[in-house]
Amino acid sequence: MVAWEAYLNEHRDQFINELLEFLRIPSISSLPDHRSDVQWAAEWLEARMKAAGIESVRIMPTGGHPVVYGDWIHTSGRPTVLIYGHFDTQPVDPLDLWDNPPFEPIIKDGRIYSRGASDDKGNLFIPIIVAEAMLKTGGGLPVNLKFLFEGQEEIGSPELPDFIGANKDLLSCDLVLSADGGQWDENQPALILGTRGLAAVYIHVQGPDHDLHSGAYGGTIANPIHALVQILDSMHDQDGRITVEGFYDNVRSLADKERAQLSRVPFDEGEYLNKIGATSVFGEPGFSTYERAWARPTIEINGIYGGFHGEGLKTVLPSTAHAKISCRLVADQEPSEISDMVLAHVKKVSPPGVKVKATKAKSGAIPYLVPAAHRGMSIAASVLRDLYGKEPYQIRSGGTIPVNALFLHYLDAYTIVFAFGLNDERSHSPNEFFRLSSYGRGQKAYGMLLDQLGEEFGHDETAEL
Amino acid sequence: MVAWEAYLNEHRDQFINELLEFLRIPSISSLPDHRSDVQWAAEWLEARMKAAGIESVRIMPTGGHPVVYGDWIHTSGRPTVLIYGHFDTQPVDPLDLWDNPPFEPIIKDGRIYSRGASDDKGNLFIPIIVAEAMLKTGGGLPVNLKFLFEGQEEIGSPELPDFIGANKDLLSCDLVLSADGGQWDENQPALILGTRGLAAVYIHVQGPDHDLHSGAYGGTIANPIHALVQILDSMHDQDGRITVEGFYDNVRSLADKERAQLSRVPFDEGEYLNKIGATSVFGEPGFSTYERAWARPTIEINGIYGGFHGEGLKTVLPSTAHAKISCRLVADQEPSEISDMVLAHVKKVSPPGVKVKATKAKSGAIPYLVPAAHRGMSIAASVLRDLYGKEPYQIRSGGTIPVNALFLHYLDAYTIVFAFGLNDERSHSPNEFFRLSSYGRGQKAYGMLLDQLGEEFGHDETAEL
Repeated sequence: MVAWEAYLNEHRDQFINELLEFLRIPSISSLPDHRSDVQWAAEWLEARMKAAGIESVRIMPTGGHPVVYGDWIHTSGRPTVLIYGHFDTQPVDPLDLWDNPPFEPIIKDGRIYSRGASDDKGNLFIPIIVAEAMLKTGGGLPVNLKFLFEGQEEIGSPELPDFIGANKDLLSCDLVLSADGGQWDENQPALILGTRGLAAVYIHVQGPDHDLHSGAYGGTIANPIHALVQILDSMHDQDGRITVEGFYDNVRSLADKERAQLSRVPFDEGEYLNKIGATSVFGEPGFSTYERAWARPTIEINGIYGGFHGEGLKTVLPSTAHAKISCRLVADQEPSEISDMVLAHVKKVSPPGVKVKATKAKSGAIPYLVPAAHRGMSIAASVLRDLYGKEPYQIRSGGTIPVNALFLHYLDAYTIVFAFGLNDERSHSPNEFFRLSSYGRGQKAYGMLLDQLGEEFGHDETAEL
Repeated sequence: MVAWEAYLNEHRDQFINELLEFLRIPSISSLPDHRSDVQWAAEWLEARMKAAGIESVRIMPTGGHPVVYGDWIHTSGRPTVLIYGHFDTQPVDPLDLWDNPPFEPIIKDGRIYSRGASDDKGNLFIPIIVAEAMLKTGGGLPVNLKFLFEGQEEIGSPELPDFIGANKDLLSCDLVLSADGGQWDENQPALILGTRGLAAVYIHVQGPDHDLHSGAYGGTIANPIHALVQILDSMHDQDGRITVEGFYDNVRSLADKERAQLSRVPFDEGEYLNKIGATSVFGEPGFSTYERAWARPTIEINGIYGGFHGEGLKTVLPSTAHAKISCRLVADQEPSEISDMVLAHVKKVSPPGVKVKATKAKSGAIPYLVPAAHRGMSIAASVLRDLYGKEPYQIRSGGTIPVNALFLHYLDAYTIVFAFGLNDERSHSPNEFFRLSSYGRGQKAYGMLLDQLGEEFGHDETAEL
């Protein structure tokens, strides 16, 4: 056993307890009331990274939630690897569906239950303690390392593009490892070639200036909820195809080669549905479920609300109605263009009698695709093959990791998503958890990957493939 | 000045203060938390009616909220008049739109601001104090009087049909006066020939059994909000016509004579819209605004909710979505048949991939039309003509007074809506109020009407016209 691995084993309990401590910080980036908690998480990380032996550690402002930076740059002739993760979390509602308070982590059956356990604090913490293990046992690291941890991934990283653009020299690197993502399952590794982008739009429909008696006014003026459902319903056809004009125009078609590769990924529809309690799959005809999840764009209504929602009946013609919608995008859709198309569609289909206001959310993310032949990808594949004893699937992720595209754009470096969350861990839902087994394996994997990158990945590797 | 009128004038301040006391009781019938407040309002009324000299006063159970009964039956050869009103109120949300707490009534500029001030406590209290004035000054009443005040009008009077059916002898009468309604405006009286009925349906759409990450699952399974907006949008065409099969089949066509009469009621569209802050009228083509409001049925979405509705963005594919819808019905639509049609429609249009459950609300009300030639109607018209110096409009009300149809069915007695609320008094909305001037005029009107009914309305008048 190599020295760093022994160190990780010896400190196993301590590193679990430290993760629990980190998880207790309710760093919900979308809620203004939790702004100081996001800052608190940044300060916690700053202190912990310094203790690990990482250098130049500091909290840097972004205009929104801060980032935490650190580095260790002492091996000339070796590649520089930037490690990315995020220390903010999703909100917790509906709170009553949690078995345990979301920010009071507990360990049950080998799992840590807490908001942020899998997405992303558990994954983020792994490279920090691996670096500590290497620094405290060998006196150095096999590559030059930089750390960039952000506090607003769950709201779409609104300030991060400007931050990366303004700090290109500080962040320059040959390769990015993203600690935000996961593996296929406990026994099967996977590498992600692409992630979907994001564009979001909020729709507000204003009817009368106050709620009205539905007896007095029902039938004489437009009900804003009726207008809203009409607008929203017009965005899909009966089969789930998106009907917003131009929406599919820039979608890169799936290559036959990639479709063949995706079709080799086993899919058990019964199990897939059972896990989420759904009755059937549904969506755009002509594509498999994975193809729809990974390589096709969506428009999703994330929330809708208007009028009375208490118990019983209130015969009201409401004043306003609201919806939040977000689009998952694939290469080569451009978030701002897509938002504009949605706004134009809303304008086109808005019925008379109400005022409709649709606004682009600040959040947005460019979709991302890494070439399958990328050298870092094949090194990561060999580490995973050694560790799991299986060839990793080469897949995509339906989720959004906005920074992948940003790193490519600003730093000219591709990102390998190298993380150990699993799909059933209820990220974004009540009762989120992270497996202790993943926590342990992730540590070993990061150690092996850094070692192999140090040996095999030239710092002259470029993004041009 | 007659004696009862002098008595009312002398006790003016006392009767205002007593109304304020009555309004302080938060008797919201739709909210289980306020059940004891509805009971409290019943007890308050019981005590006040006894003090007025009304006899046989008692609270009677219904299985839901109670009713309060009282009578005074001592004039043989005179008609028996049943006076109806309700002591429950609508909920108060959104609370932050109230300038003053809804159950802490205040008087400002000659108006009493409070939930329930206009609908219906202010109106209900009038005949009680008029009876007191007559009893304390003349020693008797010009007619036999019965009082029936209920505590669940705002939830559609679910238990009242059974109650009236079970107490036909107790409630038997020649004519009903409903103290739940209003006049055209401060200077123009109106008599209501018809009220709309009500049928309500709740729709619940279940997708996955927990909220999902919209990146991981978006595009692969049905989103319950999408399904809900599709279902709801299918209930109207672009012009606002209802597309539920059979919905209009039993609608009694407007007679040319009634249309001509309705067209004589002045309508200022600018003022109408300005009062409610709406941009234009909207609805079923081929009918005037009043015709749509009074003589045409509706399907109205009263509330919709599902997914995330906090601040900012949450990229979730939600587990459930819900809507509350209610239909305003006109003669001769039958509430239960209409609910069944809506349920059948929901079933027909429900898309795949979700579980849709639609349920009939307990609430329901039969639409109602009184013959224009009814004798009580012409007596009421003459009282209003004397009091206002104007011929009352003969209109309908778009609202629902479920009991009108019930009294006709069980007691074979037509109802004259004789009340003094006005349309701008924000019943069902924040900042509801009742005019002190209406409170005073209503007292005089009730005194005059009871006197004239005693002289002119035979107790052999029947519902058969």
